[in-house]
Amino acid sequence: MALIVQKYGGSSVGNPDRIKNVASRVAQYRARGDRLVVVVSAMSGVTDNLIKLAREIIPLSSEREMDMLLATGEQTTIALAAMALHALGVPAVSLTGAQAGIVTDGVHTKAKIRNITPKQVHAWLDSGHVVIVAGFQGQTPEGQITTLGRGGSDLTAIALAAALRADLCQIYTDVEGIYTADPRIVPGALKLDQITYDELLELAGAGAKVMQLRSVEFAKKFSVIFEVRSSLNDNPGTIVKEENKSMEDVVIRGVSLDKNQAKITLIGVPDRPGMASRVFKALADAAINVDMIVQNISHGAASPTTDLSFTVDKPDLLKSQKVIDGLKKDIGFRQVIPNEAIAKLSIVGVGMRSHSGVAARMFETLALEGINIDMISTSEIKVSVVLDLAKGEQAMRAVHAAFLKS
Amino acid sequence: MALIVQKYGGSSVGNPDRIKNVASRVAQYRARGDRLVVVVSAMSGVTDNLIKLAREIIPLSSEREMDMLLATGEQTTIALAAMALHALGVPAVSLTGAQAGIVTDGVHTKAKIRNITPKQVHAWLDSGHVVIVAGFQGQTPEGQITTLGRGGSDLTAIALAAALRADLCQIYTDVEGIYTADPRIVPGALKLDQITYDELLELAGAGAKVMQLRSVEFAKKFSVIFEVRSSLNDNPGTIVKEENKSMEDVVIRGVSLDKNQAKITLIGVPDRPGMASRVFKALADAAINVDMIVQNISHGAASPTTDLSFTVDKPDLLKSQKVIDGLKKDIGFRQVIPNEAIAKLSIVGVGMRSHSGVAARMFETLALEGINIDMISTSEIKVSVVLDLAKGEQAMRAVHAAFLKS
Repeated sequence: MALIVQKYGGSSVGNPDRIKNVASRVAQYRARGDRLVVVVSAMSGVTDNLIKLAREIIPLSSEREMDMLLATGEQTTIALAAMALHALGVPAVSLTGAQAGIVTDGVHTKAKIRNITPKQVHAWLDSGHVVIVAGFQGQTPEGQITTLGRGGSDLTAIALAAALRADLCQIYTDVEGIYTADPRIVPGALKLDQITYDELLELAGAGAKVMQLRSVEFAKKFSVIFEVRSSLNDNPGTIVKEENKSMEDVVIRGVSLDKNQAKITLIGVPDRPGMASRVFKALADAAINVDMIVQNISHGAASPTTDLSFTVDKPDLLKSQKVIDGLKKDIGFRQVIPNEAIAKLSIVGVGMRSHSGVAARMFETLALEGINIDMISTSEIKVSVVLDLAKGEQAMRAVHAAFLKS
Repeated sequence: MALIVQKYGGSSVGNPDRIKNVASRVAQYRARGDRLVVVVSAMSGVTDNLIKLAREIIPLSSEREMDMLLATGEQTTIALAAMALHALGVPAVSLTGAQAGIVTDGVHTKAKIRNITPKQVHAWLDSGHVVIVAGFQGQTPEGQITTLGRGGSDLTAIALAAALRADLCQIYTDVEGIYTADPRIVPGALKLDQITYDELLELAGAGAKVMQLRSVEFAKKFSVIFEVRSSLNDNPGTIVKEENKSMEDVVIRGVSLDKNQAKITLIGVPDRPGMASRVFKALADAAINVDMIVQNISHGAASPTTDLSFTVDKPDLLKSQKVIDGLKKDIGFRQVIPNEAIAKLSIVGVGMRSHSGVAARMFETLALEGINIDMISTSEIKVSVVLDLAKGEQAMRAVHAAFLKS
């Protein structure tokens, strides 16, 4: 008899029929003898409607009141989900985030979970109920309602699984699991049976839209093993867990392509101490997130200069240029070259640490395809390159074939 | 600087524009220096939509889950109302019933308020905020969300006014106040400046749809003076309070007409002890609410029989007949005559106690109109008669003119 935490997102509970489907699945697990805690999101569309209502009243809402408003979305779903289980004859009870004992800090709209005291969850489980918990929400020690921000329902599920010492945490979604690459771009992409927290973090950070980083970070921190799987069928999904020996045998776990970046190059930056720090401090002050940074060796003996390139999120490009233009007089670089037509291709795998020549093989593959590499950056378990946007998908397919062909 | 509790119903907060209107009114009071607690209902239509969603899942919902679901309606309004005040530059904060300290028993969908510990309300008031409280809801001492049933938001407002020792409690609605009669039937009906709790209770019990009985009972029990007034203009409304000397000078406070009753007459009931109790016990067991009961003196010396008449709510007529038919063998009455075509006309006033001849004057007025009286029943401050439904409105106008013409 296992204790299982399941999480269903907004599209899985998007209408009464889908809520009934979720209830059927939960009832099946329960019939096997498992104890279940089910975390649900707001029905798809509901949160957007609430935001629209708020905007009709005031353009920029108080974050405390926004949380009060948005928390109703999940509260609606939990009640309906409990009713759907009742319709199948399964005892079930709904709990808000506050009732489930999810205590957060007071940073409204993006609160952090401080601790969980799931007294009511335990009591209802002990009396034989399926417990339905509202995802995405909690309350402060002072009793203020908070929400956890993007991906908050995943976080609720993983944090509850940790607090309850659940045997299993299942994140139900509309894909089959985590793939070696986006199947819409790489037809031969394979579903992974397992992946490490770090690999998933690097893939997500490199543009793969599977889960929010902080849910994965939380799972890693508290060693919560979880499974990402489809709510549309009974196929096993992908298990996310700590690295073990066998996982190092696979050199590359996945390939991701991020088309949402832009590159800025500063030509002729005087090669003096403090130049780079001035550039990136100014960007940080403007709340611009910089991803890759590459600086080449300097040229010219008398007053040496260097070229500095970095990437930012595409929507931040104009803002970044303004910031850089403001520094021109102070720093004295020669020219700024913005480039929106780039893509970032990354390969990720813990096996990289024990297999040499991975980066070289990636570069060779791209060379054989006649694709030029613009920037390179590496971490312990990732190699990323920036290349021409138009060649991004071709590059992804080639690299996937080189490392991951089945 | 007064502490005022205001309550706005579902149609007063039915869309973003109306919520903004409510905020403007609240802001005006605050500009005068008053401290404000504002109780709001769900936006009109929202509760019905939630009930519809629940019915798509299961025909008869668990009452606990229904409360969880319906409580989201008021929670949405409080957040939007707080935002609307922010838009006017007024500091405001929303509180759910639970956060406002409204503790109820555990009878879901019709919970009774046990006590109120408005710690958070006091704290927010003290820091200069308008406090918006979700009507209709509370929580049990164990932290379960409950709702108070029909008219629950009025009850929230009056109970909060009592707990906070508010200087004034204003119930905003879509009528100007309480009238001497329904103005749609009696064109000369007058708005009352004041009325006693008991008179309002008798009028409401006699079919005037102003407020739920239990809110008025609660106000009477805790001596909460409240005002019923319009949210559409700034006219003063009707003050509801304890009786005082001056209020006895008015003989009749109001006239009400209830067209929602039906009459059942049992002809030839054996005049033996226990007959009436058997009839009304059987009706009570079937959860049928009996209003007026009239039994005449008996006829026949050897085996005397009597006629027994009573009224029930019109929708209960068929069910009542079935119950009575089931008693025929046991009791042995001769005939049952149901009559749907009746109306109950009532006059109400505490002045009745010190003015004699009130009933006689009512009967005389009806006689002059050529209207026959079918049943009569009186209480200390009310006289009710049952008459032909077709003559009901004519009778109401005549009696109103006799007692209340301006």
